[in-house]
Amino acid sequence: MDSHSRTLGHAAVERCRVLTGCTDEEGMVRRACLGPAMKRAHMLVAGWMEAAGLDVRVDPVGNLIGRVGDPKGRPLAIGSHLDTVRDAGPFDGILGVMLGIAVVEHFRSRGQALPVPIEVLGFTGEEAARFPLPYLGSLAMVGGLPEDALRLCDPQGTTLEQAIADFGGDPGRLFEPAWSEANRPLAYLELHIEQGPLLESRGLPLGVVSGLVGQRWFRLSFEGRAGHAGTTPMELRRDAAPAAAELVLVAESMARSTPGLLATTGELRSSPGAINVIAGRVTVSLDVRHGDGAALQSAADALLAEARSIAARRGLDVRVEALAESAPSPCDPGLRALLAEAVEAAGVTPTELVSGAGHDARAMARLTPSCMLFLRSPGGLSHHPEEDVDADDVALALDAAVRFVDKLAHAPR
Amino acid sequence: MDSHSRTLGHAAVERCRVLTGCTDEEGMVRRACLGPAMKRAHMLVAGWMEAAGLDVRVDPVGNLIGRVGDPKGRPLAIGSHLDTVRDAGPFDGILGVMLGIAVVEHFRSRGQALPVPIEVLGFTGEEAARFPLPYLGSLAMVGGLPEDALRLCDPQGTTLEQAIADFGGDPGRLFEPAWSEANRPLAYLELHIEQGPLLESRGLPLGVVSGLVGQRWFRLSFEGRAGHAGTTPMELRRDAAPAAAELVLVAESMARSTPGLLATTGELRSSPGAINVIAGRVTVSLDVRHGDGAALQSAADALLAEARSIAARRGLDVRVEALAESAPSPCDPGLRALLAEAVEAAGVTPTELVSGAGHDARAMARLTPSCMLFLRSPGGLSHHPEEDVDADDVALALDAAVRFVDKLAHAPR
Repeated sequence: MDSHSRTLGHAAVERCRVLTGCTDEEGMVRRACLGPAMKRAHMLVAGWMEAAGLDVRVDPVGNLIGRVGDPKGRPLAIGSHLDTVRDAGPFDGILGVMLGIAVVEHFRSRGQALPVPIEVLGFTGEEAARFPLPYLGSLAMVGGLPEDALRLCDPQGTTLEQAIADFGGDPGRLFEPAWSEANRPLAYLELHIEQGPLLESRGLPLGVVSGLVGQRWFRLSFEGRAGHAGTTPMELRRDAAPAAAELVLVAESMARSTPGLLATTGELRSSPGAINVIAGRVTVSLDVRHGDGAALQSAADALLAEARSIAARRGLDVRVEALAESAPSPCDPGLRALLAEAVEAAGVTPTELVSGAGHDARAMARLTPSCMLFLRSPGGLSHHPEEDVDADDVALALDAAVRFVDKLAHAPR
Repeated sequence: MDSHSRTLGHAAVERCRVLTGCTDEEGMVRRACLGPAMKRAHMLVAGWMEAAGLDVRVDPVGNLIGRVGDPKGRPLAIGSHLDTVRDAGPFDGILGVMLGIAVVEHFRSRGQALPVPIEVLGFTGEEAARFPLPYLGSLAMVGGLPEDALRLCDPQGTTLEQAIADFGGDPGRLFEPAWSEANRPLAYLELHIEQGPLLESRGLPLGVVSGLVGQRWFRLSFEGRAGHAGTTPMELRRDAAPAAAELVLVAESMARSTPGLLATTGELRSSPGAINVIAGRVTVSLDVRHGDGAALQSAADALLAEARSIAARRGLDVRVEALAESAPSPCDPGLRALLAEAVEAAGVTPTELVSGAGHDARAMARLTPSCMLFLRSPGGLSHHPEEDVDADDVALALDAAVRFVDKLAHAPR
């Protein structure tokens, strides 16, 4: 690794820490989409972008965009998001934007012209922490927003339309295309902390993402009959608790025995919820993920069928509410290969892993070939104040990203 | 059955329905211990008692007591409670007090002297719906209150001491004995709806209670580690949801396969409780009941050991909080035999059943031999506005109770 990568990589980490000061809530990091802390973050990040030679603008929904290089050429887009969940750590999303700027700085500090125009994208609203739509900013840029997006409401009842106006933007321009067909990005690269323990367990600082999992979210309500815990004989009960318990265990065991499948039952609540009353209803959430669409569908189908069969066997009803779904989003095979070469050239054994979380790359893949590079997450920790990253891993990621830009610029198209 | 039993039994049902008008909350039945609705109920019930020839008084905690017969003799106490849960039905508790009055009226209407003095006890605070202590009124009468009872608080922060004063009583007299050794009741009889489906399933209107189950209440917290549902591989999870699910199923299966054992997991709640977050903690309540003390102890021990072994196997912690316990309270064998004879003489096949719920008879048994007669509960329904009883079953219960009084008065002591 050259000294530029080390210096600029460490500086990117410092910038992430500086940005934790831009928060909507004292004593923690919380930077909402189109909120006051984002305004202050934009001033800082725009300053760093301009110092690196990028032309900066903010689009209607509050994405911060910096561009450098031939204004007529199709750029490589490098980005991630600047918004956070409540009580967040310093790196989720932010680090990818800081590394986009660092790539540009790396070429400048070596006195080299950029081999390809670069747009650094600082998305907003990836987290669905304010408005109930993940990837809000990146979806806006790729023309993927639902028609009624302006009427989305935050928990205080403020519409997206009002929030855009309050932020100083023009809601009427929300659906304008970000790029023409001629100047849209030729590729998208996102650098992001893994948020999981796999790279750490493999002893590797970097990993090429093979694709983003598809997701199906359900809420199941097992409906039995509440009753007195002392006067209702066991054989006459229609208890919702053991029905939900069976489903929880089936989901876990199916996921453990099916390669690539994740199943989580994080929400579990009984009603009426008293010690001496048999549970008349238990709701349980089901989050199913897989990198392969057919495998995802088949697992979700099997788990819902199992829920219905548990309910039928126990004389209960089960209501199934489908809350959300998204198809798997494989990363571009050509870009993955280039990224693996770049990682190897940076001195790191290339490894691939599936992203179990969603990222802006999911939205960007609708527009242009996309890829992601993960950085090792100490302890697998994320969405947590102690979320961390090793500064030397960041330097390696920058090294690999710079090599990727060179390779991409010279790759046959 | 004679016409007196039919008329007075049906009248007892009507009185229960009249008392539903005494409520602390419009649109439902809710009669709290020492509340304003209880004051109005006392006026009605005292009127019926006085018309039946009973001398009426209210003790410090708000029990309504009517007495008739030789003032020096030891009475038979017949009673139950006048307070209700929130959104209650008309009969739970109330019916037993109305039947106590009806027994006295039955002898009067036949022009017969009572063969034994009778005290009709209208207890308060059986439900723990206002102050967090079940059998409050009957415990007070048998000298079974905890020393700090006056400092018990209702959900509004009113102490029992204040509530007694507001009701017009003297809190300083709370611990005075209700009876001297010489005049304490020679027996206690409680008539109560079953609150369960057993008599209905046996096709019988009445059942002699063999005893009241012992109870152990616990709250278990399985403590694992919250984590991202997409980025945490199945094999690295410490998920509290399947641990709690295993316990729920073990409790159910143990209770189904152990005669007389009831186990209920009515309270089930995950934390942080989000769809895409692995449950870091799940709390589950455990209500274990059995009529035999040794069997209760052994089931509770086995379930707690199972919880610890589930936690250990999954790398979790489990915290066990013991919330309450009470020993089984068998009914007096001699009284049970007399009651069975009385039931048979009333034309009903005698049957015995265990009471899975607690009743004032549990407190009264500390003072005097006690017994209970259950009336069939249509649909097993109780603590519910649609709680019901068949008026002809009530007439049969009255017939049996009157025969029981005669048999008791003439039984060798």
